[in-house]
This record gives sequence, structure tokens and C-alpha cells, in this order.
Amino acid sequence: MRDSVITTVDPSESEATAPRLNRRQAAKVRTRQKVLDAARTLFAERGYDPATIRDIAKGAGMSTGAVFANFQDKAELFEAVLSEDMAKMAEVLKNGADQDAGLRNRLLGALTAGYHGSIDQLPLVQAVVARSWFQPLAAEMRSRTLTKGLVVVVGDILQSGIRSGELRQDTDVRLLGELIWDAYLSNYRRAAYDNWGVEELSAHMAKQIDVLLAGALSRQ
Amino acid sequence: MRDSVITTVDPSESEATAPRLNRRQAAKVRTRQKVLDAARTLFAERGYDPATIRDIAKGAGMSTGAVFANFQDKAELFEAVLSEDMAKMAEVLKNGADQDAGLRNRLLGALTAGYHGSIDQLPLVQAVVARSWFQPLAAEMRSRTLTKGLVVVVGDILQSGIRSGELRQDTDVRLLGELIWDAYLSNYRRAAYDNWGVEELSAHMAKQIDVLLAGALSRQ
Repeated sequence: MRDSVITTVDPSESEATAPRLNRRQAAKVRTRQKVLDAARTLFAERGYDPATIRDIAKGAGMSTGAVFANFQDKAELFEAVLSEDMAKMAEVLKNGADQDAGLRNRLLGALTAGYHGSIDQLPLVQAVVARSWFQPLAAEMRSRTLTKGLVVVVGDILQSGIRSGELRQDTDVRLLGELIWDAYLSNYRRAAYDNWGVEELSAHMAKQIDVLLAGALSRQ
Repeated sequence: MRDSVITTVDPSESEATAPRLNRRQAAKVRTRQKVLDAARTLFAERGYDPATIRDIAKGAGMSTGAVFANFQDKAELFEAVLSEDMAKMAEVLKNGADQDAGLRNRLLGALTAGYHGSIDQLPLVQAVVARSWFQPLAAEMRSRTLTKGLVVVVGDILQSGIRSGELRQDTDVRLLGELIWDAYLSNYRRAAYDNWGVEELSAHMAKQIDVLLAGALSRQ
């Protein structure tokens, strides 16, 4: 139990190097994680605005005071949830890309895995994107840092396509990655309003990838 | 004065066919338009959430009661503003496309005109996009009807490219138009957070159009 709590706090830190927590510190970590989990559940169910600190506290089985002892406000709590989720999503995307497949299917595999790993939390995704359009500059900069890991996965796959000769050497990887990412995100609206499931999202993404890669593929 | 008010209500209706309004009706139309103008100003300055009905009423020089006599709530007021603006924007885009230019520059002209016509109301654009990610299904469907005119302009330009032989006959116009639109909208975030002006937005859009059209252009 104690190990799992420590692992949750920072999965990149190996047990050997993780600092030993005394009982009080460990309890604090557990409380913080409980709040985060309750917040994630509520954000995923309702989205950002309707999820109140009062209900998050209720979900975590503690007082609102205990929540505020750990997080300054709802925005900070939201960012902490996001931070955990984005790190997980970057792994999901990375593992979705079958390294033996062609470039198109490496990309599609990664992005389909992304839909798979997030469709259950669709209102959370919607809340994240909606907030990304209207937030203070400092929050935007922090959220760019958080989502950078996802963008990097797509960029890495494109880079691998240049190395393998599948993509032209002069491909603007950054521009192309950005367009792929815009299309990927935009499709969530179909999930939200048109009831698209992972299968439809993936089929549509495949068509979009074909259009987006068309000019960058090396002539065979 | 009276004519201009009538024209604002429905620019598509010619004077000859416009119904004559009696004094009371004309006053009602003027009041409604005053509220809409005050609301647009406030939404454009602050975005959706911080713009209160109280301040909109103040801006229009009337009571909140007078506002509610014309609009059920802020959401309805927002949609009414949007409805006027989208009709104007569709015209702006259409007029931005130089019919004598090549397809790429017809598209770029239209979209650059779009940035020109909207950059002064950036927070309003942000509010519109943010809300499009998190609204009731009925509101989403209404807003799709409102924005359809803009999407149609891009679709029409692509269709003209097929007729002229610039685009391959088998081009998926709908898919391509959607990708162009996603990229166009996404660029507003650069305006919001990275201080991009129309020049930078247009230069970036040009690069994006080149990537997006690459696979659809007829081989010369």
C-alpha cells in the first residue's frame, strides 16, 4: 500500500531513490491522492465548471478545508489532475504505435490508442480543450508544458518516418505534427455531439492522416 | 435612421419587400439592436462568462428587465450576436477570395480576410470556440447552423478548384474543408497567447494550406 502511494506520486522515481516518507508525510501524500482521484472522477463526469470543491471533498470523504489544505483552488486541482493524466496519455500513445507498421499505421495506432484511453473521460477532455481557449497566459504556458509530451510522441513518429525514408527529408515535422494534432483534437467534438465511438474516430483519423501525409510522403 | 435599423435586422431583405413597421414595432427593433450591440461590445472585450447581463444592460443604457424582455438569458443573447456576426463573416470571407488568383491564393485570401475581420474581437472568437466544446446538444446544433455559412465558403472555393482542374476530381472536399477549418481556428490560439497579428496568422495559414492541398492538387 505504501509503495503504491509513493509510485503514484512520481512514477519516474525508482524505489531505490525514492525518499522514505515518515508516517505523517505518507498520510499527507495519501490525502492528496484521494483528493486528486475524487476530482478526476467528478471532472470526468461533469466537466470543469459544474464540478464543485464541495462535491469533490464529498467524493474524497473529507471536508472542503482538507481539500484547500492541499490545493489553493479548483484551477490548481484541475492542473494537478491534468498533469497525472497527460503523463499517462503520452505512454498510451507511445505504446499504441506498432513499430513494425508503416508510418501511416504507426501514427494511426498511436492516435487510436489515444482515443481508446480517453473516450471514457470525454467530458474531461472537453473541459480541457474548452479551458485551453480561455485561460490566463500563465495557465496556458503551464498547460503547454503538460501537453508537450503528447505532441512529442507524434513528432517522434514523424521523425522516424524521415529516418526510414518514408517521409521526404525536407518535411516540416513541426507544422505537420501540429496539423495532425489539430485534427485529432477536433474529432473529439464528434464523440461529444455525434456519439462517435473509437471505431468511427479512428476511421476518420485514418482519412485525415492520408490527406495530411500526402504531400510529405517520398515518391515511391 | 429608420431604414438603417430595418436593414440591420435582416440585410437579406430588400427595402421593397421589408414589412413596414409601426412606431411601436420600430422602437422594439431599435431596443433589441441596442442590446445586441452592447452585448457584442462586452463579449468582445471580456469573453462570455465575465460579461454579465447587468453590465450589458448598463452598456445599452437600459434596465436588466428591458434586456430580459428581449432575450430569455445570456445564452440566447450570445447566440443572437453570433448569428449576426457569422452572416457578416461569411461575406467577409467570400469577398476576400480574389477570383482571378490560383486556388491556393483564393483560399488564403478568404481566410486572411477572416482574420482581418475578427482579430479585433479576439476574446469573442475565443469565447465562441470555448463554448463550442461544452454546450448542450441543442445549442451545438444551432451553432452548427450559424457557422455553416463560413464552412460553405471554404467548400465553394474547393469546388471551384475541382471545376477549374486545379484539384483532382476525386478530392474529398468535405474532409479537406474540415481540415482547413480546424487549422484556421486553431491559429487563433496563437493570436490569443503568442500575440500573433494578421500577418503572422496569414503566413502560417499559407504553410498549412500548402501541406493540406499537396495531395489533392492535380499533377501539372
